[in-house]
Amino acid sequence: MSEPLRLGIAGLGTVGAGVVKIVRQKAALLEARTGRPIVISAVSARNRDKERGVSLATYEWVDDPVALAARDDIDVFVELIGGSDGPAKAATEAALKAGKDVVTANKALLAHHGQALAELAEAKGCVLRFEAAVAGGIPVIKALTEGLAANEVTRVMGVMNGTCNYILTRMENAGLTYEQAFDEADKLGYLEADPELDVGGIDAGHKLSLLSAIAYGTQVDFHAVELEGIGRVSAEDIRQAADMGYRIKLLGVCRLTGRGLEQSMAPCLVPATSPLGQLDGGTNMVVIEGDQVGQIVLRGAGAGEGPTASAVMGDVMDIARGTRLSTFGAPASLLKRATPAKSTAPAPYYLRMALVDKPGALAKVAAALGEAGVSINRLRQYGQSRESDSAPVLIVTHKTTREALDTALAAMPETGVVLGSPVALRIEAA
Amino acid sequence: MSEPLRLGIAGLGTVGAGVVKIVRQKAALLEARTGRPIVISAVSARNRDKERGVSLATYEWVDDPVALAARDDIDVFVELIGGSDGPAKAATEAALKAGKDVVTANKALLAHHGQALAELAEAKGCVLRFEAAVAGGIPVIKALTEGLAANEVTRVMGVMNGTCNYILTRMENAGLTYEQAFDEADKLGYLEADPELDVGGIDAGHKLSLLSAIAYGTQVDFHAVELEGIGRVSAEDIRQAADMGYRIKLLGVCRLTGRGLEQSMAPCLVPATSPLGQLDGGTNMVVIEGDQVGQIVLRGAGAGEGPTASAVMGDVMDIARGTRLSTFGAPASLLKRATPAKSTAPAPYYLRMALVDKPGALAKVAAALGEAGVSINRLRQYGQSRESDSAPVLIVTHKTTREALDTALAAMPETGVVLGSPVALRIEAA
Repeated sequence: MSEPLRLGIAGLGTVGAGVVKIVRQKAALLEARTGRPIVISAVSARNRDKERGVSLATYEWVDDPVALAARDDIDVFVELIGGSDGPAKAATEAALKAGKDVVTANKALLAHHGQALAELAEAKGCVLRFEAAVAGGIPVIKALTEGLAANEVTRVMGVMNGTCNYILTRMENAGLTYEQAFDEADKLGYLEADPELDVGGIDAGHKLSLLSAIAYGTQVDFHAVELEGIGRVSAEDIRQAADMGYRIKLLGVCRLTGRGLEQSMAPCLVPATSPLGQLDGGTNMVVIEGDQVGQIVLRGAGAGEGPTASAVMGDVMDIARGTRLSTFGAPASLLKRATPAKSTAPAPYYLRMALVDKPGALAKVAAALGEAGVSINRLRQYGQSRESDSAPVLIVTHKTTREALDTALAAMPETGVVLGSPVALRIEAA
Repeated sequence: MSEPLRLGIAGLGTVGAGVVKIVRQKAALLEARTGRPIVISAVSARNRDKERGVSLATYEWVDDPVALAARDDIDVFVELIGGSDGPAKAATEAALKAGKDVVTANKALLAHHGQALAELAEAKGCVLRFEAAVAGGIPVIKALTEGLAANEVTRVMGVMNGTCNYILTRMENAGLTYEQAFDEADKLGYLEADPELDVGGIDAGHKLSLLSAIAYGTQVDFHAVELEGIGRVSAEDIRQAADMGYRIKLLGVCRLTGRGLEQSMAPCLVPATSPLGQLDGGTNMVVIEGDQVGQIVLRGAGAGEGPTASAVMGDVMDIARGTRLSTFGAPASLLKRATPAKSTAPAPYYLRMALVDKPGALAKVAAALGEAGVSINRLRQYGQSRESDSAPVLIVTHKTTREALDTALAAMPETGVVLGSPVALRIEAA
C-alpha cells in the first residue's frame, strides 16, 4: 500500500494543532512505520485566524465540519471538536454515512451515543477509534481491546481525571483546603469550562463507561455510572486516610457480577503502597485485571497536546496499516444491554459524620449501623468542634455491602444525633 | 470472516498448556471478539504422555515440530518450544516458508535471528508476532509498535526479569545475602535451568534488544547489549542505596543518540519513589518515553502460565481479526544497522571498593578519579573489615560519562591500594 492516507481534521484546538504538527514534522517516520504516506487534505475549525503555531496554508479550509466529513478527498475523519452532541455528532455521523473511517478524542460523544455510532460504523464497514478519549496518551483502549482480548476481565479501575488527582494531591501534600486547591487548579487552567465535568466525576465517568463496554461486551451505558464528585472530600478525610495507610483518589471501578454491571466513579480510599495510591499530580492510571493476566497497570499523562495527539495518531496509523477493529472490540450487534447493578462486592467503608455533642449520641449511631448489619472496625471521636456544638466522628466499618451501608445511612436522620449528611467513602482493595 | 483460524502448537510446557486451555475454555469469547472461531488442528511436544491438565485427544499429534509447522490444516504456527536455535528455529522457518503466520514467546530466537526471520516473514507475506517474548502478560510490544507509533522514542527502560527482581527484593526486605536469596529463588523454581540466563542478565538482555529494534527502527542486535548480572550486588550495596533514597534493580535501558544505539542491562540505582523503584518481587515494568507522549509506565506479571498465554492469545486474536503488522513495526528492509554505542549520557555512579588499610589510600583513589575527570559527590569510609586488613569505601560521583569512569576504574590497580575490582553501578534518572 503506497496510496497516501488522507485526513480531514475538524477542531483545531490544542490537540488538533498537535496532530497537524505530528503529520507535518514526522512524515518520514509515519510512512516508514505504516508503509504509506499520511497527509492532511482539509481542516475545519470555528476560528480561521487563530494562531496555532503551525501552518495550515496547504490544506483546504472548510467552515462546516459536516461538509468536511463527507469530502471525496479524505479517507479518515478526525473529530476533535468535542461535546456530546451538536457539530461533533453531526459530523461523525456524516463521515460514517459517507463511508469514512473516524478517529475521535471525544469521550462525551461516545459515552452518550457510542452504541448507535458503533452500529452505524459497522453497517457502513467503517472503523471508529477513540484511544485519545480515555486516559490521554496511555494506550489503554488498545491494551483492553487487543492485547488482553483473551481475558475475561474481572475488574477495571482507573484514575482518569488529572485535575481531580491534582486537587487531591495538593490537598494532601500542601495541606490546602478543597477550595484552595480548586482555585489553584483553576488558575493553572486545568479545569473545564464547566468545572463540574471534572470535579463532579462526569468526564471520568464518560471514560469509565467506554472501558466497561470493551471489558464486558456490553452497550455503553454512561447513565448507569454511579457518580460522586470530590467536592465533599475534606483535608481532614485525607489526613485520616493517610494515618491509616490510605490515600483518597477519584476512582472509577467497573466489574460484572451475577447481579449485573457495576460502574462507579467516586472518591475512594486505596492503599498508599498500591500503584494507585502512589499516583501523584495530574498523571492518569488504569488498572486492568483479567482471569489470565492478573493485574496490569498502565500509567501516563492523561491530557495535554502531545499525549492526546499521540493517541489520535496511534489510531490513524492503525488505519494506515490496515488494522480494522470493531469499535468496542466485538461487533456492535453482539454487545449486550447490561443490567446496572449497585456495587455489591462487600468492602470496608470510611465514614465521617458530625454528631450533636450529647451523651449517648455515639451509641445511637452504632446502633443504627448494627441494625443494618454494618459492623464497626475502628472508631475515632475527637473533641468538640471549635465552631459549633458538634463532635466529629470517624468510623471504618468491616466489609459490608453498599446496600447495607445505604440502609444504615438512611436511618441516621432518625437517630436525631447526626448533623448534616455523613461522608461515606469505599475502601477499594487495589 | 467466519472461517475458523486453525492453530498448530509446538511446545506444550506450562505456557503451551495454558494456550490450549484458553482455546478450549473460552471458545465463545474468542469468537465474539474476533468474529471467527479459533481452533487447534495439531500439537507437538517431546513427551506425549505427560499430564498437562488439559485434554489433547481431539488434536492431531505430530512428533516433529517442523512437520507440524508446514501442515496444510494450520493457519498459524504457535512456537512455544524455546531456545535460540534447534527445533524452535527450524520449525519457525519451516512455517514461514510454508506461508504460515507465526506467534512465538521465544525471546532468545528473536534476539539472535530476529532480522533474518522478519525478512523471511516479509518475503512470504506472513506475520511474525512475539508479544509473549517480552514482559509476559504486559502488552508492551503492542504499546510500542502500535499505540505509541507516532512518537520518536527517547528512552526505553525495563525491569524484565522477575527472578532477579525477586532476589534483589528479598535481599532488601528480608536482609538476605545474594547467595541466600538465590537459593530461595532456586527452591521456588524461579530460576532457568541455566541460572546465568536470569542472574547474568541474558534473558532480560534478549528482551531489551527486541524493544530497541521496535523503538528505533534498527536491526535486532543482542550482541551489542552491555550485559552485567546481579551477582556482585551485595546486601551492603542495597542498604547504602536505600540510605540515599535509591533501590537497586536489574535495569535495561536503551536510547539512540548521535553516537549510536546504547543498550545496557545492568544493576542500577533508581529513585525509591519512582515507579521502577516501587516495583517489588517478581513483577515486571517497562517505561517508554516518547517525544509526544512523555513517560508511559506499564506494569504486570512477567511470567507464568496465565500471563504468558494471555500474550500469545492476544497475538493470535490479532491475526484472527486480520491485523497484519511488520515484525518490528516497520518493513524489515527499512530497519537500519545501528552503531553500538557505550552509554554516553552522563550519570552519577555508585562505587564500592575495598582499600588497603593504610594512611593515604583514600587520597590515591580520589586522585585517580580526579585525573579521569570524575568528581566525587559523596564519600563514606567505614572502619576496617573484621575479616581482613581492608577498609570498605563508598563513593557517589557527580555526573560523569561511562568512558571517564572506565578510565578511572582502569587506573585503580596502579594505585596499589585497591583490593579486588570495584563495584560500579549507574544511578539512572527514572
